[in-house]
Amino acid sequence: MDPPAAAARYTHQLRDVSRDKLKKNKQEKTDENKIIEAGEKKPNLPTYSAEEISKHNTKNSFWVTYRHGVYDVTSFLPSHPGGEQIYNAAGLSIEPFWNVYGMHKTREVYELLESYRIGNLHDDDLVDHSDDELWATEPYRDPRLIVKTAKPFNAEIPPEYQIAHFDTPNELFYVRQHMPVPELEAGSHRVRVVVEETGATRELSLHQLQRLPAATLRAALMCAGNRRSEMHHVKPVKGISWAGGAISNAVWSGVYLRDVLLSCGVDPDDTEGKHVILTGADIDATGQKFSTSIPLATALDAGARVLLATHMNGEPLPPDHGRPLRAIVPGAPAVRSVKWLECITVSSEESSSHWHKKDYRAFNPSTTWESAEFERAPPVYSLPVTSAICAPRHGDAVPVRDGHIEASGYAYSGGGARVVRVDVSADGGRSWTEARLQQDAAPHREHYAWTLWTVRLPVPDHAAQAELWVKATDGNFNTQPERFDHIWNIRGILSNAYHRVTVRLHRSR
Amino acid sequence: MDPPAAAARYTHQLRDVSRDKLKKNKQEKTDENKIIEAGEKKPNLPTYSAEEISKHNTKNSFWVTYRHGVYDVTSFLPSHPGGEQIYNAAGLSIEPFWNVYGMHKTREVYELLESYRIGNLHDDDLVDHSDDELWATEPYRDPRLIVKTAKPFNAEIPPEYQIAHFDTPNELFYVRQHMPVPELEAGSHRVRVVVEETGATRELSLHQLQRLPAATLRAALMCAGNRRSEMHHVKPVKGISWAGGAISNAVWSGVYLRDVLLSCGVDPDDTEGKHVILTGADIDATGQKFSTSIPLATALDAGARVLLATHMNGEPLPPDHGRPLRAIVPGAPAVRSVKWLECITVSSEESSSHWHKKDYRAFNPSTTWESAEFERAPPVYSLPVTSAICAPRHGDAVPVRDGHIEASGYAYSGGGARVVRVDVSADGGRSWTEARLQQDAAPHREHYAWTLWTVRLPVPDHAAQAELWVKATDGNFNTQPERFDHIWNIRGILSNAYHRVTVRLHRSR
Repeated sequence: MDPPAAAARYTHQLRDVSRDKLKKNKQEKTDENKIIEAGEKKPNLPTYSAEEISKHNTKNSFWVTYRHGVYDVTSFLPSHPGGEQIYNAAGLSIEPFWNVYGMHKTREVYELLESYRIGNLHDDDLVDHSDDELWATEPYRDPRLIVKTAKPFNAEIPPEYQIAHFDTPNELFYVRQHMPVPELEAGSHRVRVVVEETGATRELSLHQLQRLPAATLRAALMCAGNRRSEMHHVKPVKGISWAGGAISNAVWSGVYLRDVLLSCGVDPDDTEGKHVILTGADIDATGQKFSTSIPLATALDAGARVLLATHMNGEPLPPDHGRPLRAIVPGAPAVRSVKWLECITVSSEESSSHWHKKDYRAFNPSTTWESAEFERAPPVYSLPVTSAICAPRHGDAVPVRDGHIEASGYAYSGGGARVVRVDVSADGGRSWTEARLQQDAAPHREHYAWTLWTVRLPVPDHAAQAELWVKATDGNFNTQPERFDHIWNIRGILSNAYHRVTVRLHRSR
Repeated sequence: MDPPAAAARYTHQLRDVSRDKLKKNKQEKTDENKIIEAGEKKPNLPTYSAEEISKHNTKNSFWVTYRHGVYDVTSFLPSHPGGEQIYNAAGLSIEPFWNVYGMHKTREVYELLESYRIGNLHDDDLVDHSDDELWATEPYRDPRLIVKTAKPFNAEIPPEYQIAHFDTPNELFYVRQHMPVPELEAGSHRVRVVVEETGATRELSLHQLQRLPAATLRAALMCAGNRRSEMHHVKPVKGISWAGGAISNAVWSGVYLRDVLLSCGVDPDDTEGKHVILTGADIDATGQKFSTSIPLATALDAGARVLLATHMNGEPLPPDHGRPLRAIVPGAPAVRSVKWLECITVSSEESSSHWHKKDYRAFNPSTTWESAEFERAPPVYSLPVTSAICAPRHGDAVPVRDGHIEASGYAYSGGGARVVRVDVSADGGRSWTEARLQQDAAPHREHYAWTLWTVRLPVPDHAAQAELWVKATDGNFNTQPERFDHIWNIRGILSNAYHRVTVRLHRSR
């Protein structure tokens, strides 16, 4: 599809949204404008027409516009964090794209953009790319969430709330969006199941789905980029700067994807090389709906327990978590748990989407954006063992009683692995104390919930401060790497080295 | 059972063995005696009767004898590597026990023993504890194996043979024995299946077993103590000092344990808290047969692919590998793959054997023999990701061509995890090169074979030597710890930090 047409269609698709939230958004927009100084008319630069600009649409000469600004970003192309996505804006305004990928809207990025400034767009060609309507239907969010990006909305659960409940209350569950939140009605929603090989197609209402056996699963969901901010200290990585708050735990209910696929005639003995593509209702700036895929073998593995969920902790899914239907692929990076699920396709190919082919794949520390071969790299379908200290927080003053302090946090391992031990040290690993674990009863290989832990930890005598380290060991007896250096990767995912916080030790007399 | 009676019965049980190998063993014994100077009569020490010695059989006063020697080992009890096994010898000769646990027969242990010397045993009470008959039926072993202990026989496959074949030839497969090798006949062998809850019991000949569907599985077996010798450098650990040669790969065939259990009426939906105890025909010095257990859920999990194997690489199992029947629990420490399988018991309890309750459990680095609570610690049922460099060897001179050297080795992860990447560094982790992998096609979660790898590795300019590092990443994206310090444990198991070898770089002119 022609990119400007796609962007226009995208805006058009959202034109019918309710407008009652526009006022709130107007206020946010005003705040943003205070930061933004890019794109203002600069009288001492040449003026270009939209037609002239549109000719600079190749790797050898690549121009874009932002408001009145014209920019030659040819030399920037190789280092664009979003890779080839940038080519959609060749010779065009970047505004429709940035309206969807709102993480661009920071002072740093605007300053970077302005450094490529070469001219002004002719007044006659200026188009209003206001994004008010795109974001007008965003749901209410709990103010206790820690917002990382506003558009799309990405927010962590604060650590004190992670350990306050074994099952995270819905309103505190971390939120990871790629695009604006679509508004869907449970009553009219249909999910389409397509089996490419046979051509079989079925559309199922939620009511029809619920005729299959009810399924309930306690599972944590974690973003593959959780704890990215720590890896960033070794060498900068690209992506949302999550601390440890991109993981939460809930009880999901619905039906098993396995049952749906079998009811649609999928052959459980013919899975080799096949995939299940999951597509949501959220749309990007080029008109593409969000999608990713998982191996068909996983979808059909009873132990993998892949769910189509309608409920979260006993309530209908909140809009931010996929209302009215979401895939839950437990043990996998949360990106595979596609929200606002519209289509399930059994295919001999993986999803061809940007999110599937160009992201959530693993590389070694020596691989650069230039040398990365995304097509060759294994997609991340399971998460390694990890843990974090939620209390105390970095910099806290902690009371010492009888030479000990209290600490607590979470631990988790993907792929159904149960956490069997959490060790904590306050003396640089010279001594380790085993923590007490709070766990779901599910067996190893089918254990998808997180583990909460608490420890009474001896601290060195007379020390004024201590660095606390935590590491978990799972039922495969894998444990965490000590440092980030040798797991560093360009995308900053799988960031599971020991978690460390430094605290002040407060000794009462 | 009364220990001396047990030991006597044990010797008696082996009295009917063929004696044609005695001559070879006599020669070995003579060689051993050159080392042994313990137990000789020392005229300047007091003489004790066996009756007097037998009264010192408590933790407060604990004596044993060896040949003419009398020893007060009370203060040694807490640090006995075999834990409470030593209590079987309270007030008695240790010889029947050491004849079976031949790893005691080293100069170091004899010298340690002699340091506890307090007297001489009265001539009238001296008993001949010759062990000739115990070991008379040991099979022929390939001289290329690297022998770690002769009795019981424990031997590594040399690294060059590990990488020479994807499936290790039977005669080169590493050998791990706890006791003498029993001689069993395939034609008359029976395996007994007992379901404790229902009292159901069945005895199955191999012929009857083979009426179940044939099953074939490519799987590596690895001792939980593989690479223990490296962990030993951090702080001494107890156990056979395996280098990287306690792992080999083979194709096993037989029938699935799952099919056997289902045919015996075991309910697949009632597995919680239940175990399958596997018992072999090999007998220890107290008359106990070797046994360990696995969770019933694992035994019945189709994806876990637990086998009862009669064949190895297309041939009947060799005596050293369990002829005529062996359990294969892929992905688990090889100790769970019980050889010379005689009995399968479905029970609400784990195996009560020493090997199950007091070994192959995991502790953190701060746990000592004194503080270890074996009953509370999780049994190791799955192995973490590991890898090793097989060529070049430590100290080798390696040709440098165009700034690169060649290296190769193996990688493996337990629990069905497929290895997805092997990274090798020659510059202390500043740069990592991805190796080419040779793998079985089995999918992740059911991938039990090892992976062989080769790499063309850049080496630093002008350097005369290089330390090579290898680390593997598996399909759960777990990777190896960098160092052994924080995975150190009293038993020296799960020793999977980066493998490192230092080589000399040979540059031709």
